Amino acid sequence: MKINLKNSSINSEELESCSRIIRVAHEKLHLKTGAGSDFLGWVNLKIEKSELEKIKCAAKRIREKSDILIVIGIGGSYLGARAVIDALSHNFYPKNVIFAGNNLSPDYLNDLLDYVSTKSITLNVISKSGTTTEPAIAFKVLRDYMEKRYGKEETKERIFVTTDKEKGVLKEISDQNGYETFVVPDDVGGRYSVFTAVGLLPIAAAGIDIDKILSGVYDAEEEFKELEKNPCYEYAAARNILYSKGKKIELLVNYEPKLHYISEWWKQLFGESEGKEGKGIFPASVDNTTDLHSMGQYIQEGERSLFETVINIREAYRDIEFSVPEDSIDQLQYLNGQTMNEVNHKAMKGTVIAHTEGNVPNIMIEIDRLDEYNIGKLLYFFEKACGISGYLLDVNPFNQPGVEAYKKEMFRLLGK
Amino acid sequence: MKINLKNSSINSEELESCSRIIRVAHEKLHLKTGAGSDFLGWVNLKIEKSELEKIKCAAKRIREKSDILIVIGIGGSYLGARAVIDALSHNFYPKNVIFAGNNLSPDYLNDLLDYVSTKSITLNVISKSGTTTEPAIAFKVLRDYMEKRYGKEETKERIFVTTDKEKGVLKEISDQNGYETFVVPDDVGGRYSVFTAVGLLPIAAAGIDIDKILSGVYDAEEEFKELEKNPCYEYAAARNILYSKGKKIELLVNYEPKLHYISEWWKQLFGESEGKEGKGIFPASVDNTTDLHSMGQYIQEGERSLFETVINIREAYRDIEFSVPEDSIDQLQYLNGQTMNEVNHKAMKGTVIAHTEGNVPNIMIEIDRLDEYNIGKLLYFFEKACGISGYLLDVNPFNQPGVEAYKKEMFRLLGK
Repeated sequence: MKINLKNSSINSEELESCSRIIRVAHEKLHLKTGAGSDFLGWVNLKIEKSELEKIKCAAKRIREKSDILIVIGIGGSYLGARAVIDALSHNFYPKNVIFAGNNLSPDYLNDLLDYVSTKSITLNVISKSGTTTEPAIAFKVLRDYMEKRYGKEETKERIFVTTDKEKGVLKEISDQNGYETFVVPDDVGGRYSVFTAVGLLPIAAAGIDIDKILSGVYDAEEEFKELEKNPCYEYAAARNILYSKGKKIELLVNYEPKLHYISEWWKQLFGESEGKEGKGIFPASVDNTTDLHSMGQYIQEGERSLFETVINIREAYRDIEFSVPEDSIDQLQYLNGQTMNEVNHKAMKGTVIAHTEGNVPNIMIEIDRLDEYNIGKLLYFFEKACGISGYLLDVNPFNQPGVEAYKKEMFRLLGK
Repeated sequence: MKINLKNSSINSEELESCSRIIRVAHEKLHLKTGAGSDFLGWVNLKIEKSELEKIKCAAKRIREKSDILIVIGIGGSYLGARAVIDALSHNFYPKNVIFAGNNLSPDYLNDLLDYVSTKSITLNVISKSGTTTEPAIAFKVLRDYMEKRYGKEETKERIFVTTDKEKGVLKEISDQNGYETFVVPDDVGGRYSVFTAVGLLPIAAAGIDIDKILSGVYDAEEEFKELEKNPCYEYAAARNILYSKGKKIELLVNYEPKLHYISEWWKQLFGESEGKEGKGIFPASVDNTTDLHSMGQYIQEGERSLFETVINIREAYRDIEFSVPEDSIDQLQYLNGQTMNEVNHKAMKGTVIAHTEGNVPNIMIEIDRLDEYNIGKLLYFFEKACGISGYLLDVNPFNQPGVEAYKKEMFRLLGK
């Protein structure tokens, strides 16, 4: 994994000038002396061997028992698993893990009930408190449905709960009904929780090798632990420098459709960590080359307040070679001798040139291929960069006080 | 359909002060005297009865002949159909229309070939010129695949082409091979083309009643044609007023997951129409309540450069009622007596209160329900508002010169 700032418009003096504040941020994170230091469990994640076995065991039972696992969760209890599963799955085959409890649409929930009516199901409910409205409602509706369909005893075997280790409504319900439980650690916030049971159980249930993911995470912890030559810190510094120069919007860019939810996860990570006290880069994303034909015009010529961070994946799994006859009227002869992956990369390079010429600075993050190991590494890279970036911005990167505001008003209207 | 500016922070004097420039924009659009006036065919769309019959006929054959229609197109040749089909389809059942040629990922295309290997297929290729790289590559790969699988004769019956009426590579290929063709009108740009054959053929092939959609469009043309009391113009004025006050990012907000691609379509419409000459509101979107748990923190407390436009759909198709026993330990008794759709709307109202208190102005667009008629009306509403809004901003809302920049660099790298 490499970071490339060649087209970022940032020079080495500017980067150098950040070294003192980066040192301070590094110490805050590693010595746990900064704001939000109760939520740093993800920095040096250690999953007990016994817990890992328990997760794999449950995943195996889920796969044996059901066609479909419905994962109930919202925000950090949803996006990490969704991002990893999508990134590592086939683009078109239906998935055995689907998501609910992340919205309040009755049509969505009724459609889901249609869909699973001919399929055997299991449930993984994920909520630290158990009182968040969206997952609580979906859990109630789906549990009632399952108890009617399977009976109370059989339903017990089909529900897996990921929640606080000892307190909260969901823990109580689980204890009373005998559901198997997994722990949301106290020292890991939702948006940093993908490599705990929160993310790992659904990911394993999707048939993905979580050992390989964790090996990427552990290697990343090691690789990105030093103050010097740390790509996480270069990324954090670069985005804060660009922000201070008026680049208020960051676009995370991919050239693989399967990465769409990685960007959604990243938007929560950075938006929720930094968007406070009237400041923070606005995180947005595009899926290219698709969105070059929708947002491309704006990026090239709209307000000059953007910069881009591109995730560049070098290898494709299965490439396509072209063979266009000399006399073909489709005018595609220029493709001969190049593969589709090469064309995709030339589109990427051409776009970087065009956008940087249009005054949209570019940061590039390069990984070899889209596999378990590299996804583990990439997500840890973003987590660590985000913690540091929040400290550079002088906010607490580990709280989210603003999320309560809409809940308060909603509960008032609901008469709760 | 109504627009509500109560929470937009805009007063009637401010709106009044726009009346002169709105009159000018209105005249430019209706008298075709403004920039880009060659591309106003969508304002008073008239689909010939014979063309409509031809579309329906082809759609019927597509549905009889194939399990899956693959629609090849990018940008405006893709987003309109996708938006309408998603908005009007079941949330979970697999769709009979899938999309290709909107990216350059070989893994995506190979996965698609896996997926359709056990299904009968037809193809609808949509490209005005036929030379756009993404659809041209997908068409080549899929046509070769089909000719191998079905033979040349049978393939001929399975390919439907939507392109220029007389010129271009795709027209040539179609004539040479005898493919049935449909016309991309000369006076309708890609992002305004959803109600031409470009959008209507895939939409009809998805089993959606295009007569009902068009009846919404025609009613909207009539309803939104006058200068006075025109909701399109109020929306256009409001967003330009907010932009002039430093609200540089507009978030299109929905509370129905099926609307996700309506937002993607809207992002192209406004981003590509307005993002030029160093100006334009940056169009972004959130799917709520999902994204209240990811982007919600930023919206509530980040940089105060945002405003929101909410699509409020009053009725659900199938609502859910709650019955929570007095002694239930799940603490959901507060739901008794309200339906899930009501809870969803209280979340929406609570969010509007919280965000406007946080200095995020709110525009609300209300429709009765998510059906063919209202989708037709809603999309026309946005199209007309966008044309006017672009004129208010003093740009040509109907060109997209910046889209060529990346292509030029890409073609150089490809040696074209």
